[in-house]
Amino acid sequence: MSNSNWIRVEGGITAAKGYRAAGITAGLKPSGAPDLALIVSDVEAIAAGVLTKSVVRAACVDYNRQVLSSGSLVKAILCNAGQANACTGEEGWNNTLETVKLVQKAISTQAEIPPEILVASTGVIGKQLQMDLIRAGILIVVSKLSNTGGEAVAKAITTTDLVTKAIALETEIQGKPVRIGGISKGSGMIHPNMATMLAFVTSDAAVEPSLWQAMLSRATDASFNQITVDGDTSTNDMLLALANGQSGIEQITANSSDAEKLEELLTEVCVYLAKSVARDGEGATCLLEVEVQGAENSQAARQVAKAIAGSSLVKSAVFGHDPNWGRIAAAAGRSGIDFDQSQLDIYLGEFAMMIKGTPQGFDRAAASAYLKAHTNNLPRTQSPIDFQLETVKISVKLGEGNSMGAAWGCDLSYDYVKINAEYTT
Amino acid sequence: MSNSNWIRVEGGITAAKGYRAAGITAGLKPSGAPDLALIVSDVEAIAAGVLTKSVVRAACVDYNRQVLSSGSLVKAILCNAGQANACTGEEGWNNTLETVKLVQKAISTQAEIPPEILVASTGVIGKQLQMDLIRAGILIVVSKLSNTGGEAVAKAITTTDLVTKAIALETEIQGKPVRIGGISKGSGMIHPNMATMLAFVTSDAAVEPSLWQAMLSRATDASFNQITVDGDTSTNDMLLALANGQSGIEQITANSSDAEKLEELLTEVCVYLAKSVARDGEGATCLLEVEVQGAENSQAARQVAKAIAGSSLVKSAVFGHDPNWGRIAAAAGRSGIDFDQSQLDIYLGEFAMMIKGTPQGFDRAAASAYLKAHTNNLPRTQSPIDFQLETVKISVKLGEGNSMGAAWGCDLSYDYVKINAEYTT
Repeated sequence: MSNSNWIRVEGGITAAKGYRAAGITAGLKPSGAPDLALIVSDVEAIAAGVLTKSVVRAACVDYNRQVLSSGSLVKAILCNAGQANACTGEEGWNNTLETVKLVQKAISTQAEIPPEILVASTGVIGKQLQMDLIRAGILIVVSKLSNTGGEAVAKAITTTDLVTKAIALETEIQGKPVRIGGISKGSGMIHPNMATMLAFVTSDAAVEPSLWQAMLSRATDASFNQITVDGDTSTNDMLLALANGQSGIEQITANSSDAEKLEELLTEVCVYLAKSVARDGEGATCLLEVEVQGAENSQAARQVAKAIAGSSLVKSAVFGHDPNWGRIAAAAGRSGIDFDQSQLDIYLGEFAMMIKGTPQGFDRAAASAYLKAHTNNLPRTQSPIDFQLETVKISVKLGEGNSMGAAWGCDLSYDYVKINAEYTT
Repeated sequence: MSNSNWIRVEGGITAAKGYRAAGITAGLKPSGAPDLALIVSDVEAIAAGVLTKSVVRAACVDYNRQVLSSGSLVKAILCNAGQANACTGEEGWNNTLETVKLVQKAISTQAEIPPEILVASTGVIGKQLQMDLIRAGILIVVSKLSNTGGEAVAKAITTTDLVTKAIALETEIQGKPVRIGGISKGSGMIHPNMATMLAFVTSDAAVEPSLWQAMLSRATDASFNQITVDGDTSTNDMLLALANGQSGIEQITANSSDAEKLEELLTEVCVYLAKSVARDGEGATCLLEVEVQGAENSQAARQVAKAIAGSSLVKSAVFGHDPNWGRIAAAAGRSGIDFDQSQLDIYLGEFAMMIKGTPQGFDRAAASAYLKAHTNNLPRTQSPIDFQLETVKISVKLGEGNSMGAAWGCDLSYDYVKINAEYTT
């Protein structure tokens, strides 16, 4: 994975200069798996974020909104898994405030003004944080911080994700290496009530704070906002991005070629993390990638793509290896975007199913074989995701303009229902 | 089923005065089940309709839109099951025109100007109508018309619905009995590509045409637009309503108590038919009824209700008998309607799960038993739907105002995935 503008590097969330991280088991998950993660920047970093729009939201979402809107510099992100701290009322809010204070105290010297930190939670809704475990855990996780902690932190933010999701890319700006690393967690919900998309990104770029936020918002629109596992969004969804300037470059300003390069890097990281979340959707046997061309604008293209990627009927057909193009046409038609159906092209992989609104004869057995070859009905293992092998591609072309957009989802399998119905508390 | 304003009567679509109907096997379905239905009014009737908003739509949708917007009186509705006549291009359009002409010829005398008729199709997308069978079938179905044909026509419009859906109600207006009868079909899709919601309503009321359309649109907003099985809408969805004045009442005009009474009757019929479609959703083991109170306006209440009824996580939890109120809160929160989460109440049946944003202690085993008692994990039989026994009720109260709204769905079961994934062509 590389192109002429950037290369992939190791290290995930600690790949960029000046970041340390750690993930430990604090005991918040009954399973005993790692559940407390801390990411610390050596120097205070600018912070950007995208938070859930749900009006039923966790205390950490409200807290982070305050910090982000104040424009404060940020030194750390603490994330726990096990309890979501959503629907927990005033006690939940006070627990968030105490957590923040504990981290501030643990990572700063007495002399300095306490640095701002951001917090995230994922886990069961309506349960209070186990503060005794959080208090003890914070002291331990701080003691374990290291610049090779990327993998441990990627693991500790997961709930029932089958794989950890991490990436780091490097580009050259002003003759110096600049890196962006990121991790995410997805929508594994073997324990009911667990359903949160979290992603954290760190960069050593120096960049205008408002530009960093604008870049993150645009990258989110092209990545995390274009994935769908089951249409449900969480009380705790968030994406946080730090940039600490430790690459040593001059501050990047808007409308520059450096800004373009950095945004490309950020977008690539976000798209990779978002695709990973979709591929690891509950019960999924593949990544479903939908590309829409010929739209009037990119928003329209993305909307059509997301309607197709989110259609339960399309998703079920993919799971069943059924090249059911009628469902693709129907999903596109109800997306809310106006288009001329007599100009519609639909491809499944390389198979033309409909051209200019006219059904095409195609080799149904071969198209079904294409679906079978790119879905994996065996249980997902911890092996890294191979997008080449595990992506079913649907391409749609409208006759409305020259804009394109993509969306990602997964198929709908028996295991989705099983995971969400059978494992009751 | 009755109240002080109306009583339930037998006869379905032929219960109102002056309607005959028939349903036959024309051979359009490989199964040999009835697949061609005709409803005829003795005199020309005013017609109202609500058609799919999908831009990928069947030829019959376009044809009906022309007829309805012309304001023409209508004498009949022909519906076939087996081929949807969607994504069929010019040939499909020409087949619709020929079908209309054949019915006009078969039901009218040579002397009269051919009456307008409406057409509907459901079945496989992208397949042409089998016109030889349609031509022969129209002659047969016309010969079978009778004023007791309600049941046969309810059966002939289904695809893989497990039960037929029909109702008729009677009220008294101007001292005379006035009836509305209706039938619908839902979302059985054992054969892939089949997915259409159709409903037909007949009344012997005399009513201003524009008022009839306005009533139908409002009734649709409170019924068919508030059901969700899987979020997918069809290329062929339609609701058509005829009123032929044969009850002998004076024409009902807007803003009268007669209009109010007729609209209540129409709304009841539509709600019953819509709930029946949701209950018979693919793989469903219950009807999921969500009522939202305390909203700023009814549109807001309906939007929150529909978000909950459509949530895959809520639906899976109901199937698994899991009283998972966190998912209900999360779905309400992401509905797009703003509300204060600290005022949110959530009930499952009679069990208070959250009051004023605070989780309540409740008997989890008893709540799970409530779900178990109202879901039926055995295969659906042809026995009539018993809403009393088969409804899981979720009640939500916001603190924003005094408006309420409801939505209906079903649970998400293994059979949904099975039906949509395994039965490939």
